Amino acid sequence: MASCGNCLCCQCCCREGDTRTPEELTILGEIREEEDEILPRKDYESLDYDRCINEPYVEVLEGMDNKKAKKYEAVRWIMVFAIGVTVGLVGLFVDFFVRLFTTIKFSLVGDSVEKCSDKGCLSLSLLELLAFNLTFIFIASVLVLVEPVAAGSGIPEIKSYLNGVKIPGIVRLRTFLCKAAGVLFSVAGGLFVGKEGPMIHSGAIVGAGLPQFQSITFKRIRFDFPYFRSDRDKRDFVSAGAAAGVAAAFGAPIGGTLFSLEEGSSFWNQALTWKVLFCSMSATFTLNFFRSGINFNKWGSFQLPGLLNFGEFKCLDGDKNCHLWTIVDLAFFVLMGVVGGLLGALFNCMNKGLAKYRIRHIHPKAKFIRVLESLLVAMVTTVVIFTASMLLGECRELSSPTTHNTTVSGSEDINSTVRQFFCTNKTYNDMATLFFNPQEAAIHQLFHQDGTFSPVTLSVFFLLYFLLACWTYGVSVPSGLFVPSLLCGAAFGRLVANILKVKLGMDIYSGTFALIGAAAFLGGVVRMTISLTVILIESTNEITYGLPIMITLMVAKWTGDFFNKGIYDIHIGLRGVPLLEWETEVEMDKLTASDIMETNLTYVYPHTRVQSLVSILRTTVYHAFPVVTENRQNERDFMKGNILVSNNIRFKKSSVVSRAGEQRRRCQSMKSYPSSELRNVCDEQSAVAEPAEEGEDLLQQMLERRHTPYPNLYPDQSPSEEWTMEERFRPLTFHGLILRSQLVNLLIRGVCYSENQSSATQPRLSYAEMTEDYPRYPDIHDLDLAQLNPRMIVDVTPYMNPCPYTVSPNTRISQVFNLFRTMGLRHLPVVNAVGEIVGIITRHNLTHEFLMAKLRQHYITI
Amino acid sequence: MASCGNCLCCQCCCREGDTRTPEELTILGEIREEEDEILPRKDYESLDYDRCINEPYVEVLEGMDNKKAKKYEAVRWIMVFAIGVTVGLVGLFVDFFVRLFTTIKFSLVGDSVEKCSDKGCLSLSLLELLAFNLTFIFIASVLVLVEPVAAGSGIPEIKSYLNGVKIPGIVRLRTFLCKAAGVLFSVAGGLFVGKEGPMIHSGAIVGAGLPQFQSITFKRIRFDFPYFRSDRDKRDFVSAGAAAGVAAAFGAPIGGTLFSLEEGSSFWNQALTWKVLFCSMSATFTLNFFRSGINFNKWGSFQLPGLLNFGEFKCLDGDKNCHLWTIVDLAFFVLMGVVGGLLGALFNCMNKGLAKYRIRHIHPKAKFIRVLESLLVAMVTTVVIFTASMLLGECRELSSPTTHNTTVSGSEDINSTVRQFFCTNKTYNDMATLFFNPQEAAIHQLFHQDGTFSPVTLSVFFLLYFLLACWTYGVSVPSGLFVPSLLCGAAFGRLVANILKVKLGMDIYSGTFALIGAAAFLGGVVRMTISLTVILIESTNEITYGLPIMITLMVAKWTGDFFNKGIYDIHIGLRGVPLLEWETEVEMDKLTASDIMETNLTYVYPHTRVQSLVSILRTTVYHAFPVVTENRQNERDFMKGNILVSNNIRFKKSSVVSRAGEQRRRCQSMKSYPSSELRNVCDEQSAVAEPAEEGEDLLQQMLERRHTPYPNLYPDQSPSEEWTMEERFRPLTFHGLILRSQLVNLLIRGVCYSENQSSATQPRLSYAEMTEDYPRYPDIHDLDLAQLNPRMIVDVTPYMNPCPYTVSPNTRISQVFNLFRTMGLRHLPVVNAVGEIVGIITRHNLTHEFLMAKLRQHYITI
Repeated sequence: MASCGNCLCCQCCCREGDTRTPEELTILGEIREEEDEILPRKDYESLDYDRCINEPYVEVLEGMDNKKAKKYEAVRWIMVFAIGVTVGLVGLFVDFFVRLFTTIKFSLVGDSVEKCSDKGCLSLSLLELLAFNLTFIFIASVLVLVEPVAAGSGIPEIKSYLNGVKIPGIVRLRTFLCKAAGVLFSVAGGLFVGKEGPMIHSGAIVGAGLPQFQSITFKRIRFDFPYFRSDRDKRDFVSAGAAAGVAAAFGAPIGGTLFSLEEGSSFWNQALTWKVLFCSMSATFTLNFFRSGINFNKWGSFQLPGLLNFGEFKCLDGDKNCHLWTIVDLAFFVLMGVVGGLLGALFNCMNKGLAKYRIRHIHPKAKFIRVLESLLVAMVTTVVIFTASMLLGECRELSSPTTHNTTVSGSEDINSTVRQFFCTNKTYNDMATLFFNPQEAAIHQLFHQDGTFSPVTLSVFFLLYFLLACWTYGVSVPSGLFVPSLLCGAAFGRLVANILKVKLGMDIYSGTFALIGAAAFLGGVVRMTISLTVILIESTNEITYGLPIMITLMVAKWTGDFFNKGIYDIHIGLRGVPLLEWETEVEMDKLTASDIMETNLTYVYPHTRVQSLVSILRTTVYHAFPVVTENRQNERDFMKGNILVSNNIRFKKSSVVSRAGEQRRRCQSMKSYPSSELRNVCDEQSAVAEPAEEGEDLLQQMLERRHTPYPNLYPDQSPSEEWTMEERFRPLTFHGLILRSQLVNLLIRGVCYSENQSSATQPRLSYAEMTEDYPRYPDIHDLDLAQLNPRMIVDVTPYMNPCPYTVSPNTRISQVFNLFRTMGLRHLPVVNAVGEIVGIITRHNLTHEFLMAKLRQHYITI
Repeated sequence: MASCGNCLCCQCCCREGDTRTPEELTILGEIREEEDEILPRKDYESLDYDRCINEPYVEVLEGMDNKKAKKYEAVRWIMVFAIGVTVGLVGLFVDFFVRLFTTIKFSLVGDSVEKCSDKGCLSLSLLELLAFNLTFIFIASVLVLVEPVAAGSGIPEIKSYLNGVKIPGIVRLRTFLCKAAGVLFSVAGGLFVGKEGPMIHSGAIVGAGLPQFQSITFKRIRFDFPYFRSDRDKRDFVSAGAAAGVAAAFGAPIGGTLFSLEEGSSFWNQALTWKVLFCSMSATFTLNFFRSGINFNKWGSFQLPGLLNFGEFKCLDGDKNCHLWTIVDLAFFVLMGVVGGLLGALFNCMNKGLAKYRIRHIHPKAKFIRVLESLLVAMVTTVVIFTASMLLGECRELSSPTTHNTTVSGSEDINSTVRQFFCTNKTYNDMATLFFNPQEAAIHQLFHQDGTFSPVTLSVFFLLYFLLACWTYGVSVPSGLFVPSLLCGAAFGRLVANILKVKLGMDIYSGTFALIGAAAFLGGVVRMTISLTVILIESTNEITYGLPIMITLMVAKWTGDFFNKGIYDIHIGLRGVPLLEWETEVEMDKLTASDIMETNLTYVYPHTRVQSLVSILRTTVYHAFPVVTENRQNERDFMKGNILVSNNIRFKKSSVVSRAGEQRRRCQSMKSYPSSELRNVCDEQSAVAEPAEEGEDLLQQMLERRHTPYPNLYPDQSPSEEWTMEERFRPLTFHGLILRSQLVNLLIRGVCYSENQSSATQPRLSYAEMTEDYPRYPDIHDLDLAQLNPRMIVDVTPYMNPCPYTVSPNTRISQVFNLFRTMGLRHLPVVNAVGEIVGIITRHNLTHEFLMAKLRQHYITI
């Protein structure tokens, strides 16, 4: 494994891009590297965080007063609380059964080992352990077969979701059940996986599902609760749920909140943030309440904050010279950060190679191959654990238990989890202590055990853990990465502490070094920054660790970023998710919106025949269509002939708000206003406003621009392949955006009028009807064409988004990117100085890869 | 005082607005209330957070590669570190001298009291104390006379600044010196003020000033360091500085970061947030390092995180039944939150009344009156403290010191700060203990002293503190509000604990109740939420207090919001700062952009004569002018006559990007691209693109719209009063925005060309020249008109912002508001469907008061 990983590593670590100028890059073309990379796939859709304020929504708005708004807000708070409590209970469930299974397993096998160490029947103990682990892992991987999205940690998926990418299936009830049950068995099965990532994913699913009061998996679950049926609300609740997941996993409500902010909303919304924090708090304290009650029978108190906590770092009371850390240690922490970053980069590199191998060679094969792989990993892990514990452990002396009363967090004595395999009474087997315990207990041992571990044990433990954890992450079981990374890093840190303390005789606190080692390695692997700092501070419950943790994480991230991306970003990349980064690079500002936009538009007219709509929907895959009108000469002549054309032209005219018209409107509205001063202003201006009719006429003339005649004004068909370029790219005034789902909805519900009637006869849909099918709208191919009259006309204007954010073609990329990401847009029309649409920008036009390609092209042309 | 405050209170607490429907509000008109309120003033400018990417900036961009960008980024990190360290040192300075002065004062006066309690010369002790306090306060208020902005806590000012409002003088070096020195004396002078608010303000000034490497106050300080000369960078650094201030004040780096996020950037920018966190950490640990070194001679260790910390909340080791809090206590915390909210509302109400009184009756008078008021407050405070300590204290028994070894944070023994005035050896005077100590020590006493305080003492203490703190906040000395509020609330909490413990015999932890009381009162006064929760958690260094603190703060805020705003918002309101809230109310979405925009525009043309520009700049006060072209018939005829007109018309044509033109451009650029596939696409399309010349002609025709002839096309003058309405509101195509400061800069530097020459002969300004005078640009009245040739023409197009964000007139308020606030805009042009500017929205059009007025008008007209 190691050698294979290393060779893969050399290949992917050599990113020379940073040192070359863009010009050089262009010349080199970099085609070799690109072929190897997976480009963002085009089939991912964006979530729509922007509100579409169309007529049905305005109707809802009109009925909204402060009282209703407050009631609505109250429902949100209740939902958020419910999510928090549910996530806390999920954490409790997972934790309880993991504990139960692990305790049964280790006590049975432990007893057997103790017995067999005399009798020499150790292979029997090994078989016993194997039987346990393989059974558990088999269950876990069968659960993942049921719902493949439940594999892995789930953090890449949640990160993508919060970034605004819709990934099918990740927030469904079935995924939740498989994930929550699966992680329980994969952790109990002794694999080197954590339950924190899956907890976050589970939390996010609870957040997405609970406020919907319906389920795709179980169609029966369907109440009449028509709130929160929009991407915007759902994404907010997912933020809250994911934060609650972190909060429950680490007992870190603030860290959880920052996690969801860092990964998700680029948008700092105070009201939302507060709800997220409340949700996190609810989750932490629900879990805390029940665990304190169940584990210690102390109902009503709150003693165990999260599933994972690091215990209390504290000097002994008598020791006046003891410091948790000093300024001298900081220098070592920086070095450890560098090493952590390097190790993390190596880990990511090897894991990336493995993942690619799996994508190519395992995923295409029959599904049971994946189960076999899981079982293989489980078997190797079990054998390694067992052999290492039996053969490589050293017997170390126990430190006296009296001094320990104050160093542990009151509840669990650190010495209760040591293993004595083959060792005499006052000593313990250090390797077995680390391997034959739940991972949390091993972390506690490394952080708080005053009795030393031998350097050899720590090195072997680190190496085995590093390789096995790397192999395990990506196997098709639910598997987190936090705890293995922490444990691996803690062993590294403890090793450093051992060397400094024993070899160099420095006066240091070993626990701090173990903690910093854990932070360094974890930081090197996941490359999270703000939220991870806060999560670790909260888990240690010691604010004075802030600076060292932060500096270590920073250094680890910078070092690691030199070689590759964080593990989650790598896996997101391998799935081809078009993730948007935080910011564009400064260089990208050499491009403008017109350089990157999509110019081949398929559009609809305000009034369109059913047949045209159907053909557009059937022949294209776009998710949104600009609603446009054409600009040409002699529109007035056309108006007489055809109701369709005249309706369209009339709409165009009515949609242009002019300053003069606006001023007149204001004056008229002010007439009814009591203030006399205002009325004076009004009278003065309405006197001027006399030639109003003439003004209307002017407007009409203004809108009729002179063009060479195109084949058809407001045709019944979408642009066909035979059109000339001028026809395809003729000037179109932009009026709004309509989504595919909205169009299909209109067709299915028969919203149209016949040619002989006025467009006012078209039936009106309410907001509830528009959003009823959220989130899975019917497809155009579900439509029964026989029931439609193709000559009927659809007036889309009440249902389109009449004023999406737009940009001008000359806008620089950083501004476009900011607007798109911050507002969580899905489509961004590019509109020129005279109001014509010249292109559309979507997420796919803003991915790093697309922008890099465009930048290269830019360098070639100048 | 109290009775006066109460009567004022009744007047301002009766906000009935919430219970009435908007229709009722409209009918009632609410004119009575409004006359009493201070409306947002129009003379505050916005900061410009959006980048203006004009030609000089693009030039900078073109020279920017990844290497330069990284160097620039490194400079930012260094700056941020420097800011953090500086703020830490400022905190150290203030803390050191406050400690020094306070220690001298209390030890001298304390000795004198101890002596005099036998001899009966207490009045002498009082005089001694008075002499100290009055001297200190005199110095503090004289410093504020030097720079009036240095008065108060500074948080309202910083909040406004981070919200995007430019307030003159608040980030100047002189303000910093007066504030930092002033707060030292006002705290040492025994006033009921804290040093936390001023620390935050000082931090913000350091953030604003340090990266500029120049000073307005000391003109000599001017290095050649041309970075960060923009509102955007400055505001980022101010965020960091303010966060560092919080971090230094409370030892709460995460809380500080969240503070600057909550108050400032609506924009969650990961890179910035990380820098802010780093800055906060630097400040905390600089302070920590030096204080640990100076106070305990433990150089290299980090023991004292912030200026204010709450000590360690911990049960005694032996006590197994002790809990910091249980679920039962939560119910009491909620009740305490309600009471805290009510008390906070009362406090705010009284303080608002006082502030209004001061604005009306004290501020207009001679400045020395303010000094006299400060001295009066100081005198009353001193006398009250002294009298209360002497007459009202009870002698309570000291708890045995042995049990205390573990309850305090290792360094300061809680019993070292008790005062024994008049009490026998084993007892202490509880009132004197609270009043005759620095406020931090008093807080420690209330949180950690096991020996009880009598209910009478606590009540009296609370009442006196409440009234005096309320009177003090607003006096013209630098004065924070955090510590007085905490102390006041802690007394209230301790009182509740006393009652529950002694009267009801409940088994509770008094310190927790004192903490919750402090949180409740502070929450009721300042109404901060997320950041305050985190600050308090970090100050206690106990994560398990998360839930109770959060719930208390939430309840307190909701209760308080029922009556009035937070104290900082009240003071912001009294200054008439046009602050933008977090979100608009749902109801506001009944309005659209066209309802609120400013339609009376003053605009410039792309090519304008110097005389026109000067007259526009001299006769208007707008800070930005849209750059527009006119739309009318027969432009071609005009082009021949006049170079000015033809240049303008030519610019208009060139500025319209059409889809066909865009496609052609792409095809041409692709020809040079190596890939054969692309070339094929190109060839195909360039064949189509043959009628290019004809297309150009079309475009030209398209732009010439038919209108009735206006008096002058591209006149040399700005709109005059004699124009008819049609003339004033004629259709204008929008091309960009230019700021007043930019125009003045162009005129002063002689950027123009003569009528006979081409516009290419106009001298070009570099980015450095454009921003050289930041932040105080010359005024138009500084311009020497004699040196200008009024007939010269200025081409403003290279210097305008060519693509600001725009909205359509039908955009709903929530979307407009979101865009404006999130992007930190200063001007938002409203552009209609055919690209004509119909209005401009600024901060003043989005304040709550303005929107409410418009909404009322909307209800009248429908």
